[in-house]
Amino acid sequence: MSASSQSTEPGIAAMMQDIGLGARNAASLLARVSSEQKNEALLSAAKSIRARKDEILAANLQDLSAPKAKQLSAAMLDRLSLDDGRVAAMASGVEEIAGLADPIGQIIAEWDRPNGLHIQRVRVPLGVIGIIYESRPNVTADAGSLCLKSGNAVILRGGSESYYSSSAIHACLEEGLKSAGIPGDAIQMIPTTSRDAVGLLLSGLNGCVDVIVPRGGKNLIARVQTDARVPVIGHLEGLCHVYVHASADVQQAADIVLNAKMRRTGICGAAETLLIDRSALATHLPSIVNALLDAGCELRGDDDVCGQDERIKPAQTEDWTTEYLDAILAIKAVDGVDQAIAHIARYGSGHTESICASDTTAVEKFFHDLDSAILLHNASTQFADGGEFGMGAEIGIATGRIHTRGPVGAEQLTSYKYLVHGTGQTRP
Amino acid sequence: MSASSQSTEPGIAAMMQDIGLGARNAASLLARVSSEQKNEALLSAAKSIRARKDEILAANLQDLSAPKAKQLSAAMLDRLSLDDGRVAAMASGVEEIAGLADPIGQIIAEWDRPNGLHIQRVRVPLGVIGIIYESRPNVTADAGSLCLKSGNAVILRGGSESYYSSSAIHACLEEGLKSAGIPGDAIQMIPTTSRDAVGLLLSGLNGCVDVIVPRGGKNLIARVQTDARVPVIGHLEGLCHVYVHASADVQQAADIVLNAKMRRTGICGAAETLLIDRSALATHLPSIVNALLDAGCELRGDDDVCGQDERIKPAQTEDWTTEYLDAILAIKAVDGVDQAIAHIARYGSGHTESICASDTTAVEKFFHDLDSAILLHNASTQFADGGEFGMGAEIGIATGRIHTRGPVGAEQLTSYKYLVHGTGQTRP
Repeated sequence: MSASSQSTEPGIAAMMQDIGLGARNAASLLARVSSEQKNEALLSAAKSIRARKDEILAANLQDLSAPKAKQLSAAMLDRLSLDDGRVAAMASGVEEIAGLADPIGQIIAEWDRPNGLHIQRVRVPLGVIGIIYESRPNVTADAGSLCLKSGNAVILRGGSESYYSSSAIHACLEEGLKSAGIPGDAIQMIPTTSRDAVGLLLSGLNGCVDVIVPRGGKNLIARVQTDARVPVIGHLEGLCHVYVHASADVQQAADIVLNAKMRRTGICGAAETLLIDRSALATHLPSIVNALLDAGCELRGDDDVCGQDERIKPAQTEDWTTEYLDAILAIKAVDGVDQAIAHIARYGSGHTESICASDTTAVEKFFHDLDSAILLHNASTQFADGGEFGMGAEIGIATGRIHTRGPVGAEQLTSYKYLVHGTGQTRP
Repeated sequence: MSASSQSTEPGIAAMMQDIGLGARNAASLLARVSSEQKNEALLSAAKSIRARKDEILAANLQDLSAPKAKQLSAAMLDRLSLDDGRVAAMASGVEEIAGLADPIGQIIAEWDRPNGLHIQRVRVPLGVIGIIYESRPNVTADAGSLCLKSGNAVILRGGSESYYSSSAIHACLEEGLKSAGIPGDAIQMIPTTSRDAVGLLLSGLNGCVDVIVPRGGKNLIARVQTDARVPVIGHLEGLCHVYVHASADVQQAADIVLNAKMRRTGICGAAETLLIDRSALATHLPSIVNALLDAGCELRGDDDVCGQDERIKPAQTEDWTTEYLDAILAIKAVDGVDQAIAHIARYGSGHTESICASDTTAVEKFFHDLDSAILLHNASTQFADGGEFGMGAEIGIATGRIHTRGPVGAEQLTSYKYLVHGTGQTRP
């Protein structure tokens, strides 16, 4: 932090400190703003996104035609691109968040003590959240809205490749805040693409930032985890597994594997490795292989798996540790649930795993012994998503163990305080 | 971390890494150990503490007669000293923790989705916890037991001044683990007083430590917050306030203030500042002042407060920001609940505050607008304690906002995972 301060332009340091102080002040106001006022701001922001669609698309075109866009992969360009449908979906997303229950003020737990004290645990905002993301401009709307819903002030720092798109979306959020009488500092976007600004944000801006939520690829997460001097709610890779137990229904298993791998290959909940009981290779593997090959998926298997179908290529050791985010699946034969668990514990990233089985003992063992954020039985790993969990929206899937785990929605961006009601009690 | 590695003796670095790996292995076993086995270990450890009382007291005498003990304050010597009663209380504390419900495996929440998925949020351990504490040797038993109860492996690092006492207590915990068939690496104590070992622990031992819990004074907490490269559950100072509103019952307010200040002055939940409505100075202050002076408390007031009683000394600006941990109370007159809230928001540490009032509007405002971890109405701030909250025991009172807040008991040392039960669902 001191090193980065020394090398930072004084103008940026002062600007970032102003942003931090503005966020801190907004946070103390926001903690007391009514649900109605927050929802009014969100609905008005959604209206503004729809009304300013042309401006947003023009800004997006500016990003897409910038020199640096030429260096982006096809997948990144797809993430960056907006169209009528994506802008409309963004507005609907903000409206959905407005429709969620307000987590703030909820009584999470309450109990009485023998001495008559009544104790309530009540949800409060975290304070100021710094969100660092990459090419998807819609994160601006999602993250800004979720933070506002949960009573937090937010400092947004999007990727430089989506700077103009994010700025145009941010202007709509600001309009929403204004129309509801909430200070604009509640949702700030860092108005520069300088990397120094990220370093300063990670330093915590002298106590003005309570938590950092990074959303992006491995390089971003690695930088955040190394440099952050405030708590981080991390989102690491999703090396997700599907395990097909010998007791699985053949057709159901094939449907689940196909969906887990191919519905969308670029999301963190996409399956990357299939484990299958050796005793099920002859019965269960053919339907799975046919479905995947028909869908255009490349398959890489160990010796026993390759022996079943010549269209399967041999897997290398690194295949068990690779998050392809692409139409490739590694397949390995195992001798029962214990071996499947051992493989996942060794190679997995603790994100999401699914077991296809009708044997309840195997399912219970899988659920009990594995320690991933999400474990599923007879369902696709692609359900690893805040919306699918009923949270309305998410900032990402937390793979750390501190504070929150799994999909991070509005409720996960909160803390709590204790309210204790007495009648004159003193402690003996 | 790299700096501390470079200057660290190679022997210590290797030893610490072994401790980390041992803890990581123990953690993955512990997550699956039954409640009965954990409780058996705790009850056996308590038995061992009682049986080895003489050894523990001899080790304590060794600490108390060491040269460095001569540099300790009276309060620190008191914290360090053990006697028959304190050893018995330590054993009872461990037995109480054995008697608590096991948090691990508890279903925290469950719900159904429209597509038929049934989602459960189930409590799991955090993993490996590093606990850094100072002179109180009983923290060895409390922290070790709470971590075991919550299925976490723990690496204990006590103060060098209590090294022999903590080692003797740790031997009893190890005996308990052994008799229940749990690996000794579940509760490890760093077998050196070298400060390098602390630096290495704070580095996270290459991913072997999930969270650090510091328990001690400001210097310790500051070092931990600067150097830690893993999440920290922090325990900052308790600059606790009692606010006496004009509507308070006079006698009740005096009882609460006396208890909040004087029951024990050295704990973080002790009151340090009294705020009192200016309109209540004549009616409420005399009983409070008499009770406190009779109990031997020094009083320091602002001009209006001093004007009420010549035995009250004038307060300086620094009195509003001082955690005395001693028989001294700062007193300030305020004009109603809004001024009281503003004073606490500016000078408080966000730990614990109490309002004495019968006016429910004032209480609601105090509870709503203040954002301390614990807010009490008509009750002493000294109830800020895990045992008093019904948690059985605590490692401390967390003043941060991430992961947990307020008393940290077994439940607060946990994370969760999601178990999703399907019937073949794929995501559209």
